[in-house]
Amino acid sequence: MNWSISNHESTPDVLLNMESIFAQGNGYLGVRGNFEEGYAEGMSSIRGTYLNAYHDVIDVPYGEKLYAFPSTQQKLVNMIDAQTIRIYLEGEEAPVSLYSGKVISYERYFHMDRGYSERILHWKSAGGKEIKATFRRVVSFVHRELFVIDVRIEPLNFKGQVKIVSTINGNVVNYTNPNDPRVAAGHAKRLTVADYGVRGEYGFVVDETMTSKLQAACVTQHQLDAEGQASLTAEGGVVTYTTTFELNEPVSFTKWNIFTDTLRHGDKLTDRAIELQEALRGKSFEDVLAEQKHYLDDYWKRADIEIGNDAKLQEGIRFNLFHLLQSAGRDEHSNISAKGLTGEGYEGHYFWDTEIYMFPVFLMSQPEIARQLLVYRYSILDQARERAREMGHRRGALFPWRTISGTECSSFFPSGTAQYHISADIAYSYIQYYLAEQDNEFLVAYGAEMLIETARLWMEIGHYHEGAFHLDEVTGPDEYTCLVNNNYYTNVMAKHNLKWAAKSCAILQDYDAAALEALYSRLGVSPQELEDWQNAADAMLLPFDEKLGINPQDDTFLRKAVWDFENTPEDKYPLLLHYHPLTLYRYQVCKQADTVLAHFLLEDEQSMETIRQSYDYYETITTHDSSLSSCIFSIMASKVGYSDKAYSYFNETARLDLDNTHGNTKDGLHLANMGGTWMAIVSGFAGMRLKESGLSLAPSIPASWEQYAFRLTFRGRLIAVQIANGEVALELLEGDRLELALYGKPVELEPGRSVKQPLSSK
Amino acid sequence: MNWSISNHESTPDVLLNMESIFAQGNGYLGVRGNFEEGYAEGMSSIRGTYLNAYHDVIDVPYGEKLYAFPSTQQKLVNMIDAQTIRIYLEGEEAPVSLYSGKVISYERYFHMDRGYSERILHWKSAGGKEIKATFRRVVSFVHRELFVIDVRIEPLNFKGQVKIVSTINGNVVNYTNPNDPRVAAGHAKRLTVADYGVRGEYGFVVDETMTSKLQAACVTQHQLDAEGQASLTAEGGVVTYTTTFELNEPVSFTKWNIFTDTLRHGDKLTDRAIELQEALRGKSFEDVLAEQKHYLDDYWKRADIEIGNDAKLQEGIRFNLFHLLQSAGRDEHSNISAKGLTGEGYEGHYFWDTEIYMFPVFLMSQPEIARQLLVYRYSILDQARERAREMGHRRGALFPWRTISGTECSSFFPSGTAQYHISADIAYSYIQYYLAEQDNEFLVAYGAEMLIETARLWMEIGHYHEGAFHLDEVTGPDEYTCLVNNNYYTNVMAKHNLKWAAKSCAILQDYDAAALEALYSRLGVSPQELEDWQNAADAMLLPFDEKLGINPQDDTFLRKAVWDFENTPEDKYPLLLHYHPLTLYRYQVCKQADTVLAHFLLEDEQSMETIRQSYDYYETITTHDSSLSSCIFSIMASKVGYSDKAYSYFNETARLDLDNTHGNTKDGLHLANMGGTWMAIVSGFAGMRLKESGLSLAPSIPASWEQYAFRLTFRGRLIAVQIANGEVALELLEGDRLELALYGKPVELEPGRSVKQPLSSK
Repeated sequence: MNWSISNHESTPDVLLNMESIFAQGNGYLGVRGNFEEGYAEGMSSIRGTYLNAYHDVIDVPYGEKLYAFPSTQQKLVNMIDAQTIRIYLEGEEAPVSLYSGKVISYERYFHMDRGYSERILHWKSAGGKEIKATFRRVVSFVHRELFVIDVRIEPLNFKGQVKIVSTINGNVVNYTNPNDPRVAAGHAKRLTVADYGVRGEYGFVVDETMTSKLQAACVTQHQLDAEGQASLTAEGGVVTYTTTFELNEPVSFTKWNIFTDTLRHGDKLTDRAIELQEALRGKSFEDVLAEQKHYLDDYWKRADIEIGNDAKLQEGIRFNLFHLLQSAGRDEHSNISAKGLTGEGYEGHYFWDTEIYMFPVFLMSQPEIARQLLVYRYSILDQARERAREMGHRRGALFPWRTISGTECSSFFPSGTAQYHISADIAYSYIQYYLAEQDNEFLVAYGAEMLIETARLWMEIGHYHEGAFHLDEVTGPDEYTCLVNNNYYTNVMAKHNLKWAAKSCAILQDYDAAALEALYSRLGVSPQELEDWQNAADAMLLPFDEKLGINPQDDTFLRKAVWDFENTPEDKYPLLLHYHPLTLYRYQVCKQADTVLAHFLLEDEQSMETIRQSYDYYETITTHDSSLSSCIFSIMASKVGYSDKAYSYFNETARLDLDNTHGNTKDGLHLANMGGTWMAIVSGFAGMRLKESGLSLAPSIPASWEQYAFRLTFRGRLIAVQIANGEVALELLEGDRLELALYGKPVELEPGRSVKQPLSSK
Repeated sequence: MNWSISNHESTPDVLLNMESIFAQGNGYLGVRGNFEEGYAEGMSSIRGTYLNAYHDVIDVPYGEKLYAFPSTQQKLVNMIDAQTIRIYLEGEEAPVSLYSGKVISYERYFHMDRGYSERILHWKSAGGKEIKATFRRVVSFVHRELFVIDVRIEPLNFKGQVKIVSTINGNVVNYTNPNDPRVAAGHAKRLTVADYGVRGEYGFVVDETMTSKLQAACVTQHQLDAEGQASLTAEGGVVTYTTTFELNEPVSFTKWNIFTDTLRHGDKLTDRAIELQEALRGKSFEDVLAEQKHYLDDYWKRADIEIGNDAKLQEGIRFNLFHLLQSAGRDEHSNISAKGLTGEGYEGHYFWDTEIYMFPVFLMSQPEIARQLLVYRYSILDQARERAREMGHRRGALFPWRTISGTECSSFFPSGTAQYHISADIAYSYIQYYLAEQDNEFLVAYGAEMLIETARLWMEIGHYHEGAFHLDEVTGPDEYTCLVNNNYYTNVMAKHNLKWAAKSCAILQDYDAAALEALYSRLGVSPQELEDWQNAADAMLLPFDEKLGINPQDDTFLRKAVWDFENTPEDKYPLLLHYHPLTLYRYQVCKQADTVLAHFLLEDEQSMETIRQSYDYYETITTHDSSLSSCIFSIMASKVGYSDKAYSYFNETARLDLDNTHGNTKDGLHLANMGGTWMAIVSGFAGMRLKESGLSLAPSIPASWEQYAFRLTFRGRLIAVQIANGEVALELLEGDRLELALYGKPVELEPGRSVKQPLSSK
């Protein structure tokens, strides 16, 4: 099975998308797939290097600013560019490039099993000199600060002098769309060069953000495996390395870049980066490749999904899983931005996408990363408490709809701050983590406090009406319906949150009563409060329509007119780009899964009949204008037994970015959808659920597939799941014996013994 | 009874408010009550001169801009300042001023019966010279372009040389609050000087707005009734007139300013202004005062309200009626801005305030002005049609929530564009005009088309659900509850609009079938459409709660929690300055009359019992944070028989600006509230209504009043109404006999014969 993405095109439009697709990262550092040698004059490129959470603060403008509208937001900053390497052949004016001389052949690969990208250019100069140049790059999973580029130059029909020019450029700007007046002012130029120069064999540049005053440094060292003249100069915020040598046989040139920043490396960034360079001394590019392979072997062992007979889907799935790994922050400063580290869309902000769409993948393959994602949320808990106060709530924590460093960055509250559900989504992921890992220490240190503070939020905004607990004036996941009462999704998620706030206290009472007591005292929790949470959870209104037998999305949703889909031309989609929000809000029309998503996350809150009927209802009015939608419909189509639909929705997700089906891949990849692909297979086709009762599976297989297989990491075990030949085969690859449920019946897994069962049809 | 406002204070805070209170205008031109001679160094003043509708266009910034959010808005521009006159006594360094030398006495008056303001300063210079200086100013009701200042200088203990310096300054900026970062950029400087200089005895300045490229000119001529040396110079956008003369006896100095602008005077603004100056030649300041008096005699004859025994309230009422007259635009370019021409609050925009709060005063006293206000709305009908298309409606017209030149200027749509009711409010005022004037020609030329196009809007956003016609996703008048379904106010007003669209066609069918046919053909009206309007009106959902016996404000209002008034400290009001809108929207809490207002405007749509119960309910949850609220509660308290409450709410309205009870009078007066004062008396205490059945009255009298009296202009009649000594007396002062209803019973009014009836108690 092929582990490489390839694309050999060089037209501008394709390349812009490929910059995102070939982006490399390790959760800390991300580099877009730009060409080292540059492009033709006038070609668009978003030349980007990002450090996760390295941001500036910018003012948010308003025509009318009301109370507690955020006055500033954070923005991920495009930082020091160390990608550039140009090659000049003696006597030739133009450097080696796809846009000069003659391109005899050009190939480009992204090796997902080995963690590097590769471009191979067979090129003839205007003067007839032929070379083969191979560019390989690695953003290291092992050394998070390291980005290496290796260029191998092979003379094919000549011998002669060659000059290589490599730069580290501190004068970078963020991308702004020249056609979008909104971001013209203040969004482009967010950095100034704070320092730059040469220290021994190292070139360095330090940039500083204009408002947040965060610094980042890049220290670069160059290696050439040939004799040559080299110089290192610095001018105008750019450090330039130039080397000239005789090219008689293949030569390798390696550029070692180390990035450091204020958030992680204190204030002596250049010193720290040089230390890191020194620690790498003696390693070759091949060594780095070997480390990379070793790391990925483990990742794929745990995370890979195999599909027997569909190479395109196989490619899409691996691509998605690979980018998830590249994007996830591994420290308390960072999370996974909506576009990962692959582009500047959504300003590099973190959304609920992490908890609901990406966290599950890590939870069941890299629980350490999953845990770290939760720790990030805990690190911004104080800001969430402050935000709750600012919003008029006496207690509890309201997490920001979009943020980097913890404060609310959404300026349009109806589909921003009003999405209170993000606090329940975060609580949900803490609960899922507990269900998967049963990590009581984590509950003591982080989980209980998070569950208590989010539960308090629901008590603040909720109230009893005719015996039921109501949550008014919120927006659910569907952004085409905003500011409603009793959004089913929000209510059922809040119910779960409230129930688990009480439950986590009960668990800790048994596990470590002293720790619980300390927590109660610190947070001022009273026994009455626990009772209130439980009562509110029990009384939570979950809207149900008797006539249709479905859960209405909110109190008034079903009384609205249904959108006139018949008279809406294709070119009016996505609707949000062609209709005022007020008009969208007025109709029964969904941007994305909302109630249907709630039915996935908390399937036991409603009957199967209600779930099926709701699916049928919402499917007819959902546009899937959000990339967060198709995967959920796929999962739920699997659940209700619509296997063709499940497969068809899955297909929408698997290659969304590879095929640029949403048309905006150039701004960065759709990370949430990438997690959705995994969920559509593992929770959809294979029916995996994680509940208090434990892990369960209920596999089915799409009609056109011969087989598929995946792995689950769960409480120290590694479980292989294969569906093939009408059978499901389970094998415990690591860890002690375990009981799980298969089609609702208990199954014992023991080391070294495979369990097989026929597939059950629904 | 005293007809003058007086205020003799000179402290900075008071003066800022007095600038609004002493503002003068004539609907076209407005000048704030600034001091000719200026202030002490460092004192704040909003020195303003405005031409109604003379605006610039500014960009509206957004953090997130969604489809059809307005990208620009209009802003009323502070224009050429011709107020300045400085007097220097020989040998004295400091000019005559309240902030130099010694003020022996100082008085300030606003004569509302004669239409001028007056300041009398008895002053002694540092060197001991005493003078009396009297400044009088008129903004003419007869010559709309004219603003005259007359200064009389009386030497009290000396003879000697005096210098007067008078300027016309083109270098003006709009006021921006230095503490408000929102408007810092781009709001202050909106004008450049396009031309200035001297032509004969005239000084002139022409300014041009930066984006809209509208020009305005001021041409000034000076008169001195003494022999003296005079010079007229121009430099840096300022024209300066200087005269030096011997002051031996009292001398008068008069400054005649004529203002013209592109909207009304074509492109040769200076020529046109000079023509207007020439036409005034020979008139004295006393002549202007006489014209002013003549004009006001007629106004007060029709508009005055007398209260027997309360001088403070009497002052407040006349002040309000006078400012309404000063603020109402008299041409198709202009309307009445929320602050009139008295300040820069709300950017000089026109709101529904005009139709619902101010129009009624003019309708029953100056129907020509009322008519002109309607013509303005017709002049922006095409833009309202365009806006409806932009909002996704195939037909109909959606009027902008706030505007000057016709396009939507609200940037926060939940309490802006979503207030669709403004279109019904405009329709309502057209209907009221028809009911008052039965002007069929106006219906042909303007009214029917307006009613049809607004009715179409409701058909666009409305839909049938279980037999009832619903209007979803709108905001009613109460801005603490936004984006709701079936707002009672909106629905009942839309019902009226729909019914009258059909009815106006029926009226025209009888009156001028050919004109109707032409209109049908131009607008593409089909007979089916009329039927649809009528059906929708008949089926319109008017929310009613059986248990409480009230009209809920909207479908879900009564299911929300009631705001925790008990735990809301006084200093948290107005709530909008201390709570996020989302938090306000979540509760039963009203900024202002909403359902209660609907019960006033269309009282026959519900039973008296429902109206009373609704009043009782909403009163407990209304904060009156809007200045549009108390007057309506006063009217409805009168209706349901709560006379003490009616009086107490009335008291809130009568002196709102004179006593600066909302704390922001400096930004301009609250024009809607001023109309509300009139309504609280005429429609409240006196129970005046205007319906298809005609004019009706049902007077009561506040317990503490001995008597009150007012006039009504109606279908060519002038009717005097007096309530005194337990009786209501009606007299037809002008016009033919007329029948009206008194306490629901017909009464015949005949010329020259007074009708008296005892007051009825409710």
